[in-house]
This record gives sequence, C-alpha cells and structure tokens, in this order.
Amino acid sequence: MTVALLAERFRSTRALTVALAAPLGDADATVQSMPDASPAKWHLAHTSWFFETFVLRDHRRGYRPFDPAYAYLFNSYYEAEGQRQPRHARGLLTRPTLADIQAYRAHVDGALAAALPDLPDAALALVALGIQHEQQHQELLLTDILHLFAQNPLRPALWPSVPARHAPAPPPLRWIAGRAGVVEIGHAGPGFAFDCETPRHQVLLVPHALADRPVTNGAWQDFIADGGYADARLWLSDGWAWVRANAIAAPLYWQRDGSDWLRFGLDGIGPVDPAVPVAHVSFYEADAFARWAGVRLPTEAEWESAAEGLDPASGNQLDRAGPVSPTAAAPGDGLRQMFGDVWEWTGSAYRPYPGFRPAAGAVGEYNGKFMSGQAVLRGGSCATPRGHVRASYRNFFYPHQRWQFTGVRLAKDL
Amino acid sequence: MTVALLAERFRSTRALTVALAAPLGDADATVQSMPDASPAKWHLAHTSWFFETFVLRDHRRGYRPFDPAYAYLFNSYYEAEGQRQPRHARGLLTRPTLADIQAYRAHVDGALAAALPDLPDAALALVALGIQHEQQHQELLLTDILHLFAQNPLRPALWPSVPARHAPAPPPLRWIAGRAGVVEIGHAGPGFAFDCETPRHQVLLVPHALADRPVTNGAWQDFIADGGYADARLWLSDGWAWVRANAIAAPLYWQRDGSDWLRFGLDGIGPVDPAVPVAHVSFYEADAFARWAGVRLPTEAEWESAAEGLDPASGNQLDRAGPVSPTAAAPGDGLRQMFGDVWEWTGSAYRPYPGFRPAAGAVGEYNGKFMSGQAVLRGGSCATPRGHVRASYRNFFYPHQRWQFTGVRLAKDL
Amino acid sequence: MTVALLAERFRSTRALTVALAAPLGDADATVQSMPDASPAKWHLAHTSWFFETFVLRDHRRGYRPFDPAYAYLFNSYYEAEGQRQPRHARGLLTRPTLADIQAYRAHVDGALAAALPDLPDAALALVALGIQHEQQHQELLLTDILHLFAQNPLRPALWPSVPARHAPAPPPLRWIAGRAGVVEIGHAGPGFAFDCETPRHQVLLVPHALADRPVTNGAWQDFIADGGYADARLWLSDGWAWVRANAIAAPLYWQRDGSDWLRFGLDGIGPVDPAVPVAHVSFYEADAFARWAGVRLPTEAEWESAAEGLDPASGNQLDRAGPVSPTAAAPGDGLRQMFGDVWEWTGSAYRPYPGFRPAAGAVGEYNGKFMSGQAVLRGGSCATPRGHVRASYRNFFYPHQRWQFTGVRLAKDL
Amino acid sequence: MTVALLAERFRSTRALTVALAAPLGDADATVQSMPDASPAKWHLAHTSWFFETFVLRDHRRGYRPFDPAYAYLFNSYYEAEGQRQPRHARGLLTRPTLADIQAYRAHVDGALAAALPDLPDAALALVALGIQHEQQHQELLLTDILHLFAQNPLRPALWPSVPARHAPAPPPLRWIAGRAGVVEIGHAGPGFAFDCETPRHQVLLVPHALADRPVTNGAWQDFIADGGYADARLWLSDGWAWVRANAIAAPLYWQRDGSDWLRFGLDGIGPVDPAVPVAHVSFYEADAFARWAGVRLPTEAEWESAAEGLDPASGNQLDRAGPVSPTAAAPGDGLRQMFGDVWEWTGSAYRPYPGFRPAAGAVGEYNGKFMSGQAVLRGGSCATPRGHVRASYRNFFYPHQRWQFTGVRLAKDL
Repeated sequence: MTVALLAERFRSTRALTVALAAPLGDADATVQSMPDASPAKWHLAHTSWFFETFVLRDHRRGYRPFDPAYAYLFNSYYEAEGQRQPRHARGLLTRPTLADIQAYRAHVDGALAAALPDLPDAALALVALGIQHEQQHQELLLTDILHLFAQNPLRPALWPSVPARHAPAPPPLRWIAGRAGVVEIGHAGPGFAFDCETPRHQVLLVPHALADRPVTNGAWQDFIADGGYADARLWLSDGWAWVRANAIAAPLYWQRDGSDWLRFGLDGIGPVDPAVPVAHVSFYEADAFARWAGVRLPTEAEWESAAEGLDPASGNQLDRAGPVSPTAAAPGDGLRQMFGDVWEWTGSAYRPYPGFRPAAGAVGEYNGKFMSGQAVLRGGSCATPRGHVRASYRNFFYPHQRWQFTGVRLAKDL
Repeated sequence: MTVALLAERFRSTRALTVALAAPLGDADATVQSMPDASPAKWHLAHTSWFFETFVLRDHRRGYRPFDPAYAYLFNSYYEAEGQRQPRHARGLLTRPTLADIQAYRAHVDGALAAALPDLPDAALALVALGIQHEQQHQELLLTDILHLFAQNPLRPALWPSVPARHAPAPPPLRWIAGRAGVVEIGHAGPGFAFDCETPRHQVLLVPHALADRPVTNGAWQDFIADGGYADARLWLSDGWAWVRANAIAAPLYWQRDGSDWLRFGLDGIGPVDPAVPVAHVSFYEADAFARWAGVRLPTEAEWESAAEGLDPASGNQLDRAGPVSPTAAAPGDGLRQMFGDVWEWTGSAYRPYPGFRPAAGAVGEYNGKFMSGQAVLRGGSCATPRGHVRASYRNFFYPHQRWQFTGVRLAKDL
Repeated sequence: MTVALLAERFRSTRALTVALAAPLGDADATVQSMPDASPAKWHLAHTSWFFETFVLRDHRRGYRPFDPAYAYLFNSYYEAEGQRQPRHARGLLTRPTLADIQAYRAHVDGALAAALPDLPDAALALVALGIQHEQQHQELLLTDILHLFAQNPLRPALWPSVPARHAPAPPPLRWIAGRAGVVEIGHAGPGFAFDCETPRHQVLLVPHALADRPVTNGAWQDFIADGGYADARLWLSDGWAWVRANAIAAPLYWQRDGSDWLRFGLDGIGPVDPAVPVAHVSFYEADAFARWAGVRLPTEAEWESAAEGLDPASGNQLDRAGPVSPTAAAPGDGLRQMFGDVWEWTGSAYRPYPGFRPAAGAVGEYNGKFMSGQAVLRGGSCATPRGHVRASYRNFFYPHQRWQFTGVRLAKDL
Repeated sequence: MTVALLAERFRSTRALTVALAAPLGDADATVQSMPDASPAKWHLAHTSWFFETFVLRDHRRGYRPFDPAYAYLFNSYYEAEGQRQPRHARGLLTRPTLADIQAYRAHVDGALAAALPDLPDAALALVALGIQHEQQHQELLLTDILHLFAQNPLRPALWPSVPARHAPAPPPLRWIAGRAGVVEIGHAGPGFAFDCETPRHQVLLVPHALADRPVTNGAWQDFIADGGYADARLWLSDGWAWVRANAIAAPLYWQRDGSDWLRFGLDGIGPVDPAVPVAHVSFYEADAFARWAGVRLPTEAEWESAAEGLDPASGNQLDRAGPVSPTAAAPGDGLRQMFGDVWEWTGSAYRPYPGFRPAAGAVGEYNGKFMSGQAVLRGGSCATPRGHVRASYRNFFYPHQRWQFTGVRLAKDL
C-alpha cells in the first residue's frame, strides 16, 4: 500500500469512528453497561492511544503525548505498557470529557498525518495495524452502545429506524458440499492479516456440507416453540448451567409481545422479522440449535475453505453511520451471506495454528494471549466495517457472550 | 410559614441545587460510582419528581406529568408508588440527558410556583417537606460527586481550592458536663420536623460529659500511629471484619504521601490539616477511636439534650455552591461545632421513639422503614444546607458507611 | 456456690452435652451446613478448649494441653488467643475424629475435676463462666444439627417423635399492663450473670402492656393467608429486601403440604400445630407481624421488668436429651411462657448498658464486641438448658437470622 | 470378554474401591472440600447407583432398588435420570452413613453378581462401562481426599509414607521426533473405549518432537526462581487473571519451607523431590512453562500418535491401596512415562472427533456434553488404576483445575 493510500485509509477510518459516535452525548459515551463492554468514549480514546503509543511515541522523535495520564487511562490490556485503569472501572472516568477526547483525537490525527511521510516501514505497518484495530473498535462501539441502550427502560434508538423491507421468507436451507481431504487455510501473501491468521497451513477436512445461508429468526422461533430452551439434552453441560442460571429463553434483546416477539436494535424496538438471520445468540445456543436440527456447527477450516473464493467486501457490512441490522438472504443459489450480516459461530476453539508466532513487541499481546476458553467466529457482521474482514479472519468470544451480532450457519457430514 | 415565604424557600432551595450541579457535565451527572451513591442527575430529577408526584399530581387538578416514564425512573424507594429503576442501576440512564432534566426542573418549578397560591394546607405541608427533602439531596449530591471523583485517577476538583487557612492546633479536649436524670428530647412545636423526631418524650440520662469539640485529624493520626487499625481489641467484631476485608487503614479519601497524609475533597487533593475535625470515618472507626481514647460515643439523647440551647443555623454549613470542608474549631469555651462541620456518630441505634407514628400516605415510607441496622448521627456537616438541621434532627447510616462528612465527638461517664 | 456444687454442675453440664450428641455419627458431628452454624464436634471441642485454656492453662501449673494444635482448631473468636481456623471452614476438619474429641473431653473433665479443689477464686469464676458457656453451646449444637438435618432430603430426625399432644387452641391474646416510669433493670447481686447484663441501672418505661403469651403458629398462618409476606408496607426496608432476595414466604423449616403446612424439627417432619408458639422467625418477620397486628415488639426493658418476678427455671426448657419443641400455652391468667419455648425478639438493639465494662482478660471478648447490628432476644427457648436463663439475660442475633427457636411476644402502648 | 472375566473384573474393581476408602472414617468420607470435589462416600454410592440404575433397574426384571431415595442423592449429572442433589451440596448428606453405603455396595454387588450370567449383551456392555466408570471414580476419590486433607491444618496422611527413593536427577530432556503427515488416531477395534475416543479418523501432523519425559519438580523450581509466576508475558490472558486473583506462585500442595519447598501428598508432608515429574499444575501453568522454555504443549493427536506402540499398562499406575505419587523417570532412551505418573496437558481443546456420535441412552451424557471449555489430558497418572487408560484415552479438565495429578510433557516443531 502506498503511503498516500494508507493516509487516506487512516483519515477515512478515523472519520467513520467520529461519525458513529456523533449521536452520543457525553453521558452516553461515558457509561459502561457491563464489564465486557467499554464506554464509547473509551473506544474513541483507546484507538487514539494505540496510534500515539505504538507509532508516534515509538517512531516519532520528539513527540510529546497529548496528556501523560492517558497512558494509564486508555491502555486496554498491554502488560508491556504498564499499569492501567481496571477494565470493569472504565465507566467511572467522567473526566476527560467527550470533548476532551475529541480534542485528543484531533491532536493524534494531526500528528500522525504530519508524521506519515517520514515514518519507517515498521511504523507504517503499525499504522496499518492501528487502522484494523480501530475498525474492530468501531464494531465494538456499536455493540456496546446497543447493550447500554438496551438497559434503559426508555429504549432509546441510536438512529431512527428506516422503513422495514418486508422480505419474503427464504426457501428452505440447501446444503453446499465443501472440499474434503487436505486443503490449505490461513493467511499468506501481501495483504494485511492479524498474526493469528498465520501461517498458512494444511488441514484435513472430512466430507461435509455447509448451509447456503444462516439460520433465520423464523427457524429460531420454531426452536423456541419446540421447547429448545427447556430440553437439557440439547445443551452442552456448561450451556445448560448458563441457561438455568440466567433464565435464558430467547436471543439477547428479544422480548415477548403477547404471542409475538419484539427485538431491540440500534434503531430501537421493532418486530422480529422471521426472514432475517438470527443474531445475538451465544455459542451455547448455536450449538444447541444445531443439535436440535440434527446437524452441527462448521469447523473454522471448513468455513474458511468454503469462503476462499468469495468477495469478503460483499454483503451487508458497515459502510457509514446509520442503523445497521441483519437482512434477509437474497434469492439465489450457492453460499450467501458468508460475509456480513452476522458473525458465524464455528465449532472450533480459538487456538494457535501450527507454527504460530505472535507479532514482535507489545502488539504481540494482540491475539495470542487470548487463545484459551474462546470459540472462533467467522465472516463479519452488519456492524463490521466493509473491507475489514476476510476469509482467514478469526474472531473469538467466550461461549456465553452474545452482545455481538452473532449468528449460526449449520454444517453436516456427508 | 406564609405562602410567600414558602414560595421563596422553594425558589431558593431549587436554585441552590442547580448551582451545586453547575460544574458538572452530562457524564459527571450520570455515572453512579457505587450502589450507595446516586448520579447527580438522578438527584436533580428525583427531587423534582417528589414535588411533581406528592404535590402536583395529588393536589393539582389537571396536572399532566412532564413525562409519564419518569415515575419509574425517579421514584427512589416508595413502594406505594410502584415499580422503579433498581437503585444499583440508576447510573445506566444516560437518557434522559442532563439538559432534559434541567427542563424537567424548570417545568416543575413553574407549575409549582403557579399552583402554590391555591394549594390546600396538606399540600403546602408537602411542599415544606419537599424542600427539606431537596436539602437532604443537596448534601447527598455533593458527597456522591466527591465519591465519584475520588474514583478517577485524575482526581478532578469540583471547585478550585481556596487558600488554606493555617489554623493553629486546638487546645486539648475539654469536657462539658451534660444534664442527668429525666430530660425531654424530640421535636414538639410549630416548626418543621421529620416524623422520626417525634414525639417529644422523656429519657433518662446518666451523669456524663461531652467533649467540647470533635476529634481532629491530628488526633486521628495519633490513633493510626499507635496501631489503632491493627489492634483487634479496639474494634467491634463486625468492625474488625470490615477492617480486614477492606484493608482499612485510614479515613476514606486519605492517602499516604511519604510520611505525610493527603486527603481528597471537593477542592481536589491537599494535605491533611491536623487542626480540623476528622471526616469520612465509619461508625466502626468512631467506636474504635473512642475505645482507644478510653471513653465512648455519646447517646443521641445526651447529644440532643446538650444541643437544645444552641443555634442550629450557626457554624460551618452549606450556604452556597463552592468548596466545602470541615474547619478548625474556633477558640473559646463550651461546646463548639455541634452544628455543621461533621455529622457526629452517636452510640444509638436508629429506632423509633416511644409512640412514634409514621406520617400518613406514601411519605410515611420516608423514615420509619429504615429503622434497623443503622446508627444515629447528629448535628449536620459542612455540606448540610444552613437552616436544614436542628437539635432533634436524626440522621442515620449503616455502621460501615463513611462517604458522608462523618466525624466523632467523644463522651464519657461522670 | 460451693466448690462441690460447682463440681457437680460441671459434671452434669458436661454429661448433658455428651448425651445431646449421642445420636450423632462422626459425619453428623463434622459437617457444617452454613457459615453461621458450627459442627457438633466443634461445639464439643470448643467448650472443652474453653476450660482447658482459661482455667487449666492459665491457673493450673504444669498442665499440658491435650494437643497443642487444638488451640488453633477450636478457638472461636478470641483475638487475644491468636490465629484460628476460619469460622466458615470449621466443617473441613474431619480429623480429629469424633472419638478423638470424646477423648479430649474426658481428658479435660478429668484434669478439671482434679484441679477444682485447689483452684483460686478467679479460676472458679471461670469454671462457672465455662459452664454457662457450655450451656449456650448446647442450645447451638441442637439448632445447628437441626439446620444440618433440614438440608438433607431424607429429613432425618435426631430423636424419634413423641406422640403429639393435641392442645386446644389458646384463647385470644390478653394484654397485661407493665410498670411505667423509672424502673431498674440489669443484673445485680451474687448469682451468675454475663458482663453485658450489668450494671443494674434505671430506665424509663412508657405506659404499656405485654401479650400474655407468644404468637402462635395459627396466628402466623393468618398472617400468611392475609398476604403478610407480599405486602411491602408491613416491612422494614432491610427486611423487605431480605424477603425478596431469599423468596421468604413462611417461617424457616415450614413447607407446604397441599393446603396445610408441615414443619421440620428435631423429631423429623410433622404437621404445624396451630396452638403452639411460632418459632424460627427472624426479627424482620417478628417486626412485620407486629405491624400487621397493629402493635409492636416489646423493648428489652419492658420485657425484663415484666419478667423479674417470675421463675426463670419454669416452663418448657431443656432438661435432657430428647426431642424438644415449643408447646402450647397452659390455660390461665397472666404472663405465660416468658421463659422457655421460644426466644422472644425485642425491639431493642444490642448495645451496652450505661456504665458497661467488659470482663477482664480474653473473656472480655465474650459479649461486648458483638454490640452492633444485632437485636436482643429474651427468655430462653425449649432448647435452652433449664437453669441457664434469667430475667436479665440478653441473647442477640442479627435481624435476618432464624435458625434458633426464635418467636414473638407482642406489646403495645397504653 | 467372557462373562466370567467380566465378573472377575467387576469383583476386583469393586474391591479396590473399598480398599481405597478403608482408611476413611465416616466424617472423612462425607465432607466436600470444594464444589469440584465429591465426598468419598458419594463416590462409593454413585458408582453403585450407576450399576443399579443402568444395569439392574433397566435389565433385571423385578429388581427393587436398595433405597428409592438414592436415585436423587447419587445421580451425578444425568438429566435423563431426573432431579438430583445439587453438586455443591453433596457434602451435606451426613445420612446415609458410610456404613449404610457399604451395605448398599454389598447389596448391589450381590445382585449384580447374581444377575450377570443372564444379562443380555447390551447390559453386559453397561457392566463393562460401569467398571471403567468406577475406575475413574477411584482416581477422583483419591484426589478429592487429597484435597480435603490438604485443607486440614493437621495435614493428615491417608497412608503412612514409604521411605523415599533418592532418585538421581534425570539427564537433560531429549527430543523424540514424531510422525508427520496424515496419520490415524482414535479408537477402533474390539476393546473397550469411551464414545469420545471414536471414531478412528485421520489427522494431519506437522513435523514435531516430544520430550522424552515429563517436566520435573527441579525444572519447575527453576521456572519459579526465574520469576515465571510474575511475568505476565508468559501467560495466557485468562491464566494471568487466575494467577493474580488467586495469588498462585507454585503448584498446588507446595509450600515454602525456608528456601526449600515441601509438598503435601497422600502420604502427608514431605520435601519436593526435584527428580520426579511435577504434578498438580493447571493448564495455564503448563502453557506458561512451555512458553518460558521456548517450546509448546503437544497436541492430543501428536501425543496419541507417539503413544500408540507403547504398553498402556506399564509405568507408575494404581495397583492397590497405598500411597501413590509420581516417581522419577527410569534411565534409558526413548519416550518414558507416557503412561502413569502424571496426566499430561495437551494444547488441544476437548471437542468432538469428526463423526462423533454419543452413546445411546442416558449414558450418552457421559462425555459429549462436556465438550466445551476444557482441555484434553493424556496418559493417566499414578492414581489411575492400571488397565484403565490407553493411547486413545481422552481425559479433560478446565484450564484452571489442578487437583488431579496433572503434569507437563513438552513438544516442539521440527
């Protein structure tokens, strides 16, 4: 990538973040609704700290930090960068204000734009990493705000809803056979990828097929109506304990409305649309649904192998500030909605690829240290910035988490 | 009180609340730093809801609430008023915004001012109660903001500090004998009092004396230096468990600075002044200190009997928005600082007086239902609005709580 | 008391403890069913440690402890005696075995019997204290075992039930006026009393009356049927929170049996007898019941004043090993069941009497350090060893606790 | 297997369980030291319930259960078998007594021995499964008792220690290259295996080597001395949080003794022997150690592929009641201690093999439902009954658990 292109990517990414946060007041941007989530203001600041620390501080002689206290406030989890505000207490930081953080962003933006032409390649690579990093936080900013607003009895909408497209129910699932035998997965080549996507390596796939589209809300209603949340036999032991302890009976953000269901989204409250992919389900729910359906979740290798020929920048992804939510599958044949709409839980634990080496330096903490206890998700969602995701992209969450736009694509052995 | 005077009290009380909150941004006013504390915005709204509900809704025909949802959001603990936002989740309400609440306040202020001339006596009594209620929340607003800002590593000041008065260390404690035998305490007469201050009744006092002034920071430093926080024999069993579980080693908001101590206040960080009364100590600490000193805490009856002849509107109390903190005792004889500076823990459990009857209606939940597990404090603090407190005034907190301006006056048997 | 009488009291008290524990196996005697309760084996050992430490070790030259490790294992809460097994972990001590502890008891019994004739008066006073201490643990042993057995789905009985006496329902409550004005309460004189019962002092009583007998199970069923557990207005705020958090809907050990109620006791499962005093209710429940009944709980001074002329060794108290439970009031006039049957919650917080001084030495930790957060109960129960209790006796528990035989006597103002 | 051989295996397995529990008193056998552990008595009963339920009840016409209540008390986690005593509350069951359970065992033993000749093949398979099941509980019984005794300040030994063999320190680790490319793992063939070991399937191995023996206590002391427990960079994020929250600084059951280390075992307290394999380390510790050593943990496929030619009944495994603990590697070349001594953490998450199908019926809950959040261990330990384990055997625990005899074998890429 040329420096000019990098500079433009930097500018547009930074601008989108600001646009996403534009509807938020100081309070909206400050409150933390649960330890898993972060305040919007924190996302705005942390992404700036990332550029300031790993690029400007480390590669720009004479750079003076905007505020020395921010290193403590806005470091996320980099042990190599020292002590930091505890994660669960990010929401106590009413100062600096949202306006302060906007000034911080402008300061970093200016300094980085000025520095870019002279940066060494190692620093340019960190700028590219920082852009990807900020895109991840764009998605988190949206899902964290959705979680915050869902706690409010007023159920505020981040953006006004757009008129619903009344999509017809998609035809029944069809099964698309995947490759079997030894195939290669993982990233190789010149484009950007996170360290955890490498090295490219061989895997062995059994004969299998993937569903042509994700599971819909309509199918999920069938699962509920059939007692899916009340039948222990469908659930992993940890999942059943989670269902019981938390009285789980539907996807997150669903609520009963007589005999119908409503769902809360970034555009407020509205009816559940049976034609669109279910979102906000946990790995436990995805796994139980697959068992109920008599099939299984795909492995991450099966998924990646199937996705390799598809355009990762296609589909329902985040292009601009405005209401985002999953949409119904387009008519047609073949695999649809592999990219965008909902992250798809796989049956694979998030573990290192053979020969994995974390990136050098503090950014080596980016991915590798999270390789226990989490499951891999693939394909991006409606809240993933377009251009961010790719076939080899490995997202990961704990099996009980579901405040992301997480859904299900089924698989089966052939 | 004439209606005109009541109207003026209403106006000035409402204005002081707004002035106290003036330095706060939307985020400052929204975040809840612990379940015991409430957001400033919530105080601003709840005090308005009190007038709107118990006066305008109940006594003003045709009054329409500003927003029907606010009854759920801003009811504090009135079971008779229905369901409400859980106390620990008050800080999740980023909407309505601070500006919305300011509009709410203006609406209620206007409606109440318009209604006042026509209100029946029962409603006027509720207006008077609402003013007292708002004064209580003024103090809580300050102590809750202090707690919130204390969680912030930047240690923001609500107001800039004023130059410290270097008060000389007060002379040693002197003991002022109190009345003994049967005396009367409790409220009677025409002025305002809360139901829990009544009825006036006889109590039996043993021969005793009170200290002429509260315990100072200097004396507290002696207690620390003598190992007071490490000697189980000085502590109530519950207190010792609290000390151990929370690693308590000094008053709240104190921190070591080499061999000195700093304290955090509404004016930010500064040195501990040995001449001024200690504040932010729990009942457990007060009790342990008294045992260390070989004496005891006063009973609430001893305290009230001693205070009856003194002017409750004297001393260091809250007059206007600006930094407040305890100040050193003035030279002189006799009881000083009985009113203002710090609330004084008594050894008395908060229980009903003989013949106590809660007020009628929902406001009957104001005091009586809290009569278990709490201890009585007397005399008001530097954050208590001047004019609010009186000799018979009973404040109450749990024995571990110390985020109020709570201090100690010693007593002993004669 | 002569040494010979003291020796006999020692012997018989020690023997009763062993008899109470006789039906218990090693496992029964070892398990701890909740942090508030202690294993029976621990009671057996701790009471022996008390004699061994405060009498034999401190007053018997050359005494060698049975096992030096026991000081750590069986100290309860005496900070002056050093570190100890954490209270919540007493149930992890499967060794020493029950047989080991029986040998320990025999060792201490022998050594103390041999030492008694030569002990100085201070040590004899500690023997007397140790006997009272052991009687307290006899009651706790029974209530702790009852709690343990109540956790077992098999609902084992400690002793077989005896044929129920079908007592007629007692006549309606009658009210017995008490003394008013200045009266004296507290212990004075030659007999044994705990330090917290002293000094004898004057109190001021308002005109009042006490119910002639405790509240019965039948009356409690009326309270339940009238929605008492569902009406927030009847409850202290802390009590209501406790009801909600724990789904409290009946006394402890009650369970529905169709439209009837069963209760679990030391004799196993059986029907609730409406004629007998309700037991196993918390202070919160007692207070709510009194409010529902339009009256109040007595103060401890009212109770003691009324009890002073009555025989404290009368009534339904613990005489021997065998099933114990409250029984119906005998017919007749005047105050009945003041002693025995159920401990009666008073409205008084457990705080020091004027002029209270804790006993000297480690046993000074016996009572005084518990004087916060607890309420006073009076009169002993069916599980209190006969001879243990007296009019001035102050028992104390936290307001939510109810695994003792705790009941209610009502009072009202006149 | 012939019925006669099965009967003999049944008899000897049942007898070993009884022998292992022989040193335990009723209390030892009843107390539960943590929710992860079960009382010994519960193991004794649950293994009997397994035979009673799945063989006698389901396949023996007219069989009457020993006690109908036991189905509730001693079902472990079989949802298909209905409600059960909560796992964390197994230690509250002081009744039935240890003697009752011994009678229960005898009853089931007799009934099963009588039934065996007539049982259909499906029932015989369940008897074989029950024997394997009981062997698993033999190991758990030992590790649960070890945990219980470790909580006791007296540190009781289950068995007296045997004189230590002073093994010389083993020579430095050597690396044994494994197979690479497509290999087969998983169980196939006539012998017993759990459902989760099937089906046999192909996997793809990278060029790699395994260490010739497990990591020793001596190497672990080097890790400690090098600051391994204090260096965040070595740890997975979840692992580091676990280290910090629990103040982990050494393997479980290790304690400092001046500059030396002691360890607690089934034979009581003794010095840590640097020559023997480290035990009682968590997955997090194993993973951090490997990172510190610059290598990695093996995958379960690498491990199984290497183990296939070795004798699974060799090595230091459980043969009889008596003290068991890891021992030093024998001199020699090649892979040693693959079976026995310590379970070896692999880097593989416990997930289903391709084509996995749970067993039919209630025993289908045996393995499959635990396939989330856990890691695979291989090879058995000194507490695994000889004959129980095999190359394809998959054990699994959560990454923080370490009360089993869990150790580490290193691997590396070639």
